This record gives sequence, structure tokens and C-alpha cells, in this order.
Amino acid sequence: MSDLKNNLPVLYSYFRSSCAWRVRLALTFKKVDYEQRYIDLIKNEHKSEEYLKIQPFGLVPAFIDNKSGQTLIESVSILEYLDETYSDFPLLPEDPLERAKVRALVQAIAMDIQPVTNLRILRYVGDDRKDEWARHFLAEGFTALEAMLQKTAKKFAYGDSLTMADIVLVPQIFNGVRFGLDLNAYPIASRLYQELNEIPEFKATHPTKQADCPEELR
Amino acid sequence: MSDLKNNLPVLYSYFRSSCAWRVRLALTFKKVDYEQRYIDLIKNEHKSEEYLKIQPFGLVPAFIDNKSGQTLIESVSILEYLDETYSDFPLLPEDPLERAKVRALVQAIAMDIQPVTNLRILRYVGDDRKDEWARHFLAEGFTALEAMLQKTAKKFAYGDSLTMADIVLVPQIFNGVRFGLDLNAYPIASRLYQELNEIPEFKATHPTKQADCPEELR
Repeated sequence: MSDLKNNLPVLYSYFRSSCAWRVRLALTFKKVDYEQRYIDLIKNEHKSEEYLKIQPFGLVPAFIDNKSGQTLIESVSILEYLDETYSDFPLLPEDPLERAKVRALVQAIAMDIQPVTNLRILRYVGDDRKDEWARHFLAEGFTALEAMLQKTAKKFAYGDSLTMADIVLVPQIFNGVRFGLDLNAYPIASRLYQELNEIPEFKATHPTKQADCPEELR
Repeated sequence: MSDLKNNLPVLYSYFRSSCAWRVRLALTFKKVDYEQRYIDLIKNEHKSEEYLKIQPFGLVPAFIDNKSGQTLIESVSILEYLDETYSDFPLLPEDPLERAKVRALVQAIAMDIQPVTNLRILRYVGDDRKDEWARHFLAEGFTALEAMLQKTAKKFAYGDSLTMADIVLVPQIFNGVRFGLDLNAYPIASRLYQELNEIPEFKATHPTKQADCPEELR
């Protein structure tokens, strides 16, 4: 507990990590103050002995909960925890069937798109194939996601209130575009991305606004 | 609704799919009767126009909920839905911090191990590299998972009660071993796998006991 400044929760983060951005968004919508500690993936700080003790996969984010002093990992699990413990601005509907549909959108992104197109995978795929690999799985993933959004989206990804699905969608699109996602092919995802990015909480938590974002990328 | 026989819920499944096995386990522990419909991944039935209308990613499982007549997708979302709507045999603890730790184990498997070593990825990796690929990511994933289990496992993956973490763990190990996972390197995962496989619900839902399992693999 002595490791927490002013007793604030801590988010281990990297400005470009879509999974860390998810947690920044949840904390910001729920008006929870927190400290960020930066793990530079390019410098391989996530593979340091010290960080592997915190997160055994060497992935960001990790979250130190100030209520218990304990460290939580896996971003969607952290989102669920924050939603269960901070009642302000619920991220899931109340009805179980609606919750299942929001979670399906979340998991389509968090299980079927993000893990197969993230930095750890692209590095292992190798330089000669990684661009084609990312474009293939991003196109496959967003084609399916767009079909889901056709059934669920109104003002937001699920209905007319912001949910966990929006919080996971925007960071995925931001990183997807960097790796060759042609957003024009997905009109609903594209419209949501434009509109959500105008919301103050999305602006404040944007990768280019983080303290560890290099000057030339801002 | 007319599509449901005897008003039972339906699980679209493939005997070797670890994600379908997760849902069979939850239904079985919760004593929910269900009908299975078989989607043969080898015959590419998951890419048929008909199935893609049910599951836009062309992945199994999909679940038709008999309470609402609606189709749910994404296995972990289905597990959460079943846990919220069938109170028998809860799959998550009550305390939010403990729930977060169980969900972290679930997601370590469901996001960081399964998606990067499943059939769709290995097919795309290609025949000349797929064995090495699977071994690499299975070893990396299980090394991290074992470190998590060192902190959480007692009789079960989390503490002394069976949770969603056990339900996700066993199918992942079963498939991992097929693809070159050396289970001896992970003593806690190995011990859990042996003990859990003795439980009647794991035996009854085992891939080799499913109606679509070919005779020679039983």
C-alpha cells in the first residue's frame, strides 16, 4: 500500500496499448483519479524481471487497486471489476440478455481481433509478412464486427447509451488504422469512431495525449 | 422459437472446439438440458452462409437461449450470461476482487492463449511453421498462467471451489497437448488437469464423448 501516491490506484500503461486505453476510459468515465506508470514496450520494459512479477505475460495494462492494495491484470477483467465497484456511469446494461450482447461485442474485439493483431504477434510473424497478416485479420474481424453492429448499434455500439463495447471499440480502431485497417469499408464502425472521438473522455485519454507519447507523434 | 426442440436451448458445437466445451461444462454443472447441433470445422461448415448468419466470425460456439429465443455468441459472454440467469452452481465468487481474479485467469486463457493458437490461426500460419508457432505461444502462455496459478490455486484453479477458471482451463490444456504443449513443465496446471478430468461433468462433456467425434478418435 505504501507504493500508492496519495492512495490513488495505479495503471501500468503504454500510450499506444489499446488495452491500457480501455482502462483509462473506464476510470475517466467513472471519475476515478489514478496515477499512470509507463512501461515502454519498444524498450522491452514489459519483459523486465520487475514488471513480469506484476504481470506474468509481460502485457500492459496492470492495475493496482487502492481499495485492496492488490494488483489486477487482464483489461476486460479490470473493466468488469471497476464496473462492479464504482457504480457511477455503469458500463453494462442491467438486463442479462443485453449484458450478454454488450459482452459479445467486447469479446469479439478483445478475443477475436486484438490478440491476433497486437505487437507481440506481429513481431513474431516477422517483418516480411506482418503487414499482410494484420490487414487480413483486421479485415476479417471488422467484417464480422460490422455485421454484429448492424444488429446492435444505434447512437452507440449497443443502443443509445455508452457501454463497455464503445470503450473497447475506439482503441481497437485507432490501432487498426495504424496497421492498415480500411475503415471506409465499415460504415457503422467508422461513424461510431468519429462520433466517440468527439466525447471529452475519449479526447482526454487518447494515446497522443499521454505523458509517454513522444513529441513527434502528438 | 419454433426452431427449438422441446423448448431446449441449443449449442452449436464442434467436438474439438475448446470454446464449445467451455459452454457444455457450464450447462452441465448448472444442470441445464440442451440440444447440440454440430458444425464440422474440417468440412468448413462454419463458413457456410447459413452459419455466418448465426455467428458472423464463423466461430463456434453459438447458443440459442430458450428463454428469449435469441442467439448469443462469444463463449465467455455466454458463460457470464448462464451464470447470471441460472443461479445453480455459481461459476464466480461473490466478492468483486475475487471475481476479478477468476476472470483474469479466464481471460489469460481466452484472450492471450486460445486466440493465437486456434485452428483459424494455425491454418493461416501455414503448414511449414504451424507446429513451431503453436509450441512457442503455448509455452509462453502456460509459463505465465502457471505463475498466476501459483498465487491462486488450491484444490481448484482459484481457491477451493470450482469456478469459470477451471471450465476454461481444461479444454485449453486438452487442445494444447494436441499441438505440442509439454504439460510436465507446468506442475500446477498438470495436477489440476488430472484431477478435474476425474469429475463426472468433465468426463460427460469431453470431446471424445460427443456425437460428432469420429469413431477412431474415441
